[in-house]
Amino acid sequence: MKPGKELIFLPLGGSGEIGMNVNLYGCDGKWIMVDLGMTFADPTLPGVELVLPDLSFIEDRQKDLLGIILTHGHEDHIGAIPYLVGDFDVPLFATPFTAGLIRKKLIEEGIERDVELNIVKLEGEVNLGPFKCRYVPLAHSIPEGNALLIETPYGKVFHTGDWKLDESPVMGAHSTADELTAVGNEGILALVGDSTNVFNPEPSGSEQGVREGLDKVIEGRKGRVLVTTFASNAARLHTLGEVAKDTGREICVVGRSLDRILEVSRSVGYLTDFPPTVPLDRAMDIPRDKLLIVSTGAQGEARAALSRIAEGSHHQIKLERGDTVVYSSKQIPGNEISIGRVQNALAAKGIEVITDRQAHVHVSGHPGIPELEAMYGWIRPKISIPVHGETRHMEAHAKLALRVGVPDAVVPINGSAIRLAPGKPQIVSHEPVGRLVLDGDVILPADGATMLARRRMMHNGLIAVFVAVDAKGKLIGAPKVQSHGVPVEDDRDDFIADCVEAASAAAAKPAKDDALAEAVRVAVRRIARDWTGKKPITEVTVLRV
Amino acid sequence: MKPGKELIFLPLGGSGEIGMNVNLYGCDGKWIMVDLGMTFADPTLPGVELVLPDLSFIEDRQKDLLGIILTHGHEDHIGAIPYLVGDFDVPLFATPFTAGLIRKKLIEEGIERDVELNIVKLEGEVNLGPFKCRYVPLAHSIPEGNALLIETPYGKVFHTGDWKLDESPVMGAHSTADELTAVGNEGILALVGDSTNVFNPEPSGSEQGVREGLDKVIEGRKGRVLVTTFASNAARLHTLGEVAKDTGREICVVGRSLDRILEVSRSVGYLTDFPPTVPLDRAMDIPRDKLLIVSTGAQGEARAALSRIAEGSHHQIKLERGDTVVYSSKQIPGNEISIGRVQNALAAKGIEVITDRQAHVHVSGHPGIPELEAMYGWIRPKISIPVHGETRHMEAHAKLALRVGVPDAVVPINGSAIRLAPGKPQIVSHEPVGRLVLDGDVILPADGATMLARRRMMHNGLIAVFVAVDAKGKLIGAPKVQSHGVPVEDDRDDFIADCVEAASAAAAKPAKDDALAEAVRVAVRRIARDWTGKKPITEVTVLRV
Repeated sequence: MKPGKELIFLPLGGSGEIGMNVNLYGCDGKWIMVDLGMTFADPTLPGVELVLPDLSFIEDRQKDLLGIILTHGHEDHIGAIPYLVGDFDVPLFATPFTAGLIRKKLIEEGIERDVELNIVKLEGEVNLGPFKCRYVPLAHSIPEGNALLIETPYGKVFHTGDWKLDESPVMGAHSTADELTAVGNEGILALVGDSTNVFNPEPSGSEQGVREGLDKVIEGRKGRVLVTTFASNAARLHTLGEVAKDTGREICVVGRSLDRILEVSRSVGYLTDFPPTVPLDRAMDIPRDKLLIVSTGAQGEARAALSRIAEGSHHQIKLERGDTVVYSSKQIPGNEISIGRVQNALAAKGIEVITDRQAHVHVSGHPGIPELEAMYGWIRPKISIPVHGETRHMEAHAKLALRVGVPDAVVPINGSAIRLAPGKPQIVSHEPVGRLVLDGDVILPADGATMLARRRMMHNGLIAVFVAVDAKGKLIGAPKVQSHGVPVEDDRDDFIADCVEAASAAAAKPAKDDALAEAVRVAVRRIARDWTGKKPITEVTVLRV
Repeated sequence: MKPGKELIFLPLGGSGEIGMNVNLYGCDGKWIMVDLGMTFADPTLPGVELVLPDLSFIEDRQKDLLGIILTHGHEDHIGAIPYLVGDFDVPLFATPFTAGLIRKKLIEEGIERDVELNIVKLEGEVNLGPFKCRYVPLAHSIPEGNALLIETPYGKVFHTGDWKLDESPVMGAHSTADELTAVGNEGILALVGDSTNVFNPEPSGSEQGVREGLDKVIEGRKGRVLVTTFASNAARLHTLGEVAKDTGREICVVGRSLDRILEVSRSVGYLTDFPPTVPLDRAMDIPRDKLLIVSTGAQGEARAALSRIAEGSHHQIKLERGDTVVYSSKQIPGNEISIGRVQNALAAKGIEVITDRQAHVHVSGHPGIPELEAMYGWIRPKISIPVHGETRHMEAHAKLALRVGVPDAVVPINGSAIRLAPGKPQIVSHEPVGRLVLDGDVILPADGATMLARRRMMHNGLIAVFVAVDAKGKLIGAPKVQSHGVPVEDDRDDFIADCVEAASAAAAKPAKDDALAEAVRVAVRRIARDWTGKKPITEVTVLRV
């Protein structure tokens, strides 16, 4: 697929999933990339934390790739940059705060000199070949949330990025209804937009409301209060700074990712009103009712500050009976059990846990139904392309768009090449996409041999058999058997003895190496099945002397 | 621990977790067991589905165990019976419907002749040594939800079982406020009760409301409608029968566990009004707007009917664009991802998915805060013992009890022996408890060597090395290396060659078997770490000829 005299939209990640956003726009033979995010592994990828998009499609066409434009600084939009940007020799573009976060990542990876990172001023433009892109500021849960208005010879696309409406935002100025209506007045071909909260019948709510909710929860408490939130939610950090002042508490910030956000924020002129922070080693000296701790770990991450505080193994921060932990965050689906584990550890110590179920201590950064309706009313695109959602979110988003009068909607899945113009919008091809995992130091396919083997081992266990034979095929010594994760426990020696006996019998008849190995494998596996009802992976290696 | 002239409560499961309920009451040297449930494995127990309680404590004392009384027929209260009851020679007691479900399990396990299963009439009594137990009917999401009123020489315990209040229940008669007040008037020492929904500020709601909600959702739809729910929720099945009549649809029931519940229900006189069901092989012949399908799979279970219908692999039931799937159920924490996977597959086919987020199509079977408050008002116990919850639920339940005027509350964890009387209630000892898993045909400890090995393998991969040496310690042939789930993929042959080289070098110096194995292990593991950054399990076996 090479874009001709047409405008193509092609997501390589983030369509059919929430996370790992990578979007391509193609026109007149050239491509631009919008965002380059990562996502987190689920239990089907054991031993792995980070999942990255497979960019082979655009790697094969990188001479036609003009640049990578980042909408905002969340991991699902910039997180893959340090791992994958080295494969491309193209410039990056980001607004100052986002660029600050990217620069930190490049420095940590030791590649900051190898990458051209361009800082674009707020509401600035990026012109790349046939693409004229303008940053359009929208509220989100991180400073400098941006939509992109992408002008091409075939029409204009409004790529929303992640967004919400906030009537009293606490950080940065965002486009007004009038400004967005003016964008709509320019005539928008397609809106490519955030589907995350399409099932939320309510608007996402204002950050100012969270400040009031937190004030109400914290005022008058006698003990320490710890608030946990996403580090990247700098708007929430600002709110917590104000809450500390409102409630007469000093603030202490725990967790490396929070330190990083604070540093980058301040370096570009955000969070300048944030109160001076108490050093960790002095926090426990502050009177209990005068301390507000802000900490990472809202998703139950085992190594995050809050998990260690909950289990009492944090060296500097201690909580006890009478203290309070406030979850100023949502539960990301899949994290319920690990979050629950931390909350149980806190509850066991008599620490009160307050979540958004008990009080108004969180608002989302993504648009609910009324906000989506408002945006479509302002932008009035001819086509709706839902992205940033699982299939059910995108399908519901498409329905919503049609309901509010958008003439066309096309739901992509990663790899769908959608021709937006000319003609009726349609999927014209499916391009190869995939997921990579970072396993140790190695990047490899999520559905490759390693992960497959790992999954089979974890479900069934493994038996490794070793048979030595002489040139005539006669056994040298008894076969050796290792069993790993086969449910035999206390009877392991008896089980191994049975396996050795079966392997000896199977190997008694001389055969070629492959046939010998297979005969032994079948015999040993039968023993395992009879003993346990399971079918462990069984691999036999023959040493011929 | 042997109970003397005192009343002891000792949970072996279900306190500190939602699931796997097993409770002991002890007094005058004797024990009774209330419930014998199982739970489901989470991803930390790979390859396993069922988790069972470790009953060693009471196995060691089984001559003093007088019987096992079951409150109701949910898996977390009776599910461990077929696996563990064989270890005990004591009678079981259950009301007719619960007994019907247990009998089916015993038959499937082929042990129905070995177990004494006593059917107790509704509101009947079970007298075992010093324990006089009376079944007190309460509403729940299965017929014959029961509390137990347990009378002992040291006071009376009201053991709630799982319960809710329902002003217009659809199945069975439940105790009225007056009847429960009368129980309270007898003077109750302790209420041992359900903490599941202690964070729900609302009452659980009536089943009648669900009927109205489902009617509203289903009426006027042109396509097929499938409703998925827990099979055991016979009250919901009754509701769905009524909904089918209300909306003029024939009903088709898909999934073995639903068949089982229907059969047992009818055999003891429930669901007699349930409409005749359409056989599966005729369901697709019914006009689309005249069919209501009831199916298992609400938790995203991969092998359940709904998963197969969603992926189009069910042989008899097909859904397509214009059809609707209603989730008349809650999401059990930990199942969000698998449920989402099914819903995405449905959405991709243009099938509308409706959950309790979009319409009133589900109510819980556990008491919210107002119901808990009402129950404490009727029973007025001297002591509250929260059970059936994770620690955070139980701690919140204890707080609620104290707030409504209960003088004492003690929060147990599995293994806590609580002396309820005489004297102030307190934890007097911690007895051994644990979890077992059913892995294949084998029951083994959840934290034993097998599961530990399985977890280590799944995170790190495994290398098996074989070294053959002669009597003098000289290598026979090159060492053989198997690598499993080590992230080397396409370079595997080179990696293995490096391992073999390192193993050969390490084995060059003659040594005793253990020292030789260790030298090879360290050398091979270093190669793996250098190649991948991971530390696979590495086991070396020496064959000495």
